Amino acid sequence: MFAEKLRAATESNNSYLCVGLDPDPERMPHQDVVPFLRDIIEATKDIVCAYKANFAFFEALGIEGMQTLLESITYVPANIPVIADAKRGDIGNTARFYADAIFNEYGFDAVTVNGYGGRDAVQPFLDYDDRGVFVWCRSSNVGAEDFQDLELSDGRPLYLALAEKVGTWNEHGNAGLVLGATWPEQIERVREVCPDILLLLPGVGAQEGDLEATVEAAMSDSGGGFIVNASRGVLYAGRGDHYAKAARNEALKIRGRINVMREAALAGGNGRRSSGQ
Amino acid sequence: MFAEKLRAATESNNSYLCVGLDPDPERMPHQDVVPFLRDIIEATKDIVCAYKANFAFFEALGIEGMQTLLESITYVPANIPVIADAKRGDIGNTARFYADAIFNEYGFDAVTVNGYGGRDAVQPFLDYDDRGVFVWCRSSNVGAEDFQDLELSDGRPLYLALAEKVGTWNEHGNAGLVLGATWPEQIERVREVCPDILLLLPGVGAQEGDLEATVEAAMSDSGGGFIVNASRGVLYAGRGDHYAKAARNEALKIRGRINVMREAALAGGNGRRSSGQ
Repeated sequence: MFAEKLRAATESNNSYLCVGLDPDPERMPHQDVVPFLRDIIEATKDIVCAYKANFAFFEALGIEGMQTLLESITYVPANIPVIADAKRGDIGNTARFYADAIFNEYGFDAVTVNGYGGRDAVQPFLDYDDRGVFVWCRSSNVGAEDFQDLELSDGRPLYLALAEKVGTWNEHGNAGLVLGATWPEQIERVREVCPDILLLLPGVGAQEGDLEATVEAAMSDSGGGFIVNASRGVLYAGRGDHYAKAARNEALKIRGRINVMREAALAGGNGRRSSGQ
Repeated sequence: MFAEKLRAATESNNSYLCVGLDPDPERMPHQDVVPFLRDIIEATKDIVCAYKANFAFFEALGIEGMQTLLESITYVPANIPVIADAKRGDIGNTARFYADAIFNEYGFDAVTVNGYGGRDAVQPFLDYDDRGVFVWCRSSNVGAEDFQDLELSDGRPLYLALAEKVGTWNEHGNAGLVLGATWPEQIERVREVCPDILLLLPGVGAQEGDLEATVEAAMSDSGGGFIVNASRGVLYAGRGDHYAKAARNEALKIRGRINVMREAALAGGNGRRSSGQ
């Protein structure tokens, strides 16, 4: 079960931080992707709860991209889950094949998907009840306003209607939501309607999300956990030969800030309680 | 330019039919994907205006899937465009890498994308002004109702708001929309607000779209073209050794029905006019 694996990794590494693997040739200290990611993973594997591989960066490497991705994640310890950040979404018959690729062929523990196609676009992923499925809900970019924030006739923004619906699809307890850490207010609104769902929160670091506000908004007194993801901010924290050490230092810093904020909230004050995951 | 290439292929093959390449191991007459698709392409290449490769089916083949896809489409004549049906969508920084993969690394003429992330999720694709970009608007599945049909506070359904917005992003004239052929009424509503945009219409054949109603709804007197896509209905028209001949016959039949409908509409009666593309 993905949720159990994540919980165990969170406990053993005392961490709610996921590190995103986004190899950008323009920013990497050298051009060998596998050794670069191996170094990042080895420098952070005892202080993260998960890794998230962004498929776009590997597909852009060309025909060998997926091989490079799979080779890179062989360095992830078996007890740390790896999330396929693929944002796949299509009608049911097609979604079945995407799910087969990501869970069976590549063997990922969890995936991000796009729910625009509705329930039958998401269900083929949810049917793998031992894997996690994060539906893209409220994104971290400015374009999030174009559609996700559109007001429905019942007064709700679209992203909130999506969150509620995904909550009703969570029969196997393996559904989650992706919410940009750049928008703590929206996280709080989603948390109110989905108190027990797992949240994946990217956008900390390079995208300047407010980490403390994000953690506070994501905490739940009904058991819903969260994962904070940082990609560029960790991967490219340092240039030159010390990139692995710089990545570790940055990851340690973010892990610490999350834990401080979480403990402060648990100690009372805002009335929220959460075990995190 | 994708639009010009498409128009030329439409004219030379007298066809508005795109054949979808969806290799499903459970339905293929034999398990050799490249020879199967080669036979399908060779049996149809003089009667189609484009091919559409559904990435999910190739990704599900495993690590060699993309190699299989690229090898298969080497059999497509140089004058026939190939659409990457990938439904990619993510924040701008990530979308740049997906666009790089599909247009530069793999060399496709056009792509389908998911617009849920808003303009900056789509713009990196549109920036390739010589390629086509079809934004998924109203899908052919039952789940389309879950979000795409939600009524906004201004009374419009979401898919229509998306269509209008994509129309305003079409600065390079290379944007299009994907609309399921299973819903002619929705096609007609989109055509009213986007008279000059190119429509990709999947769902004919296996999904039992109403072909005549679809063509009538998609026609425009303002130059907006359309492409009708059939995948399973053509690929798996026949079993056994005669699958290529059966595919050709089915493709000929659909091409003929589209052309008859188109000519009837052009001859008057419904007041619509269209050159198709």
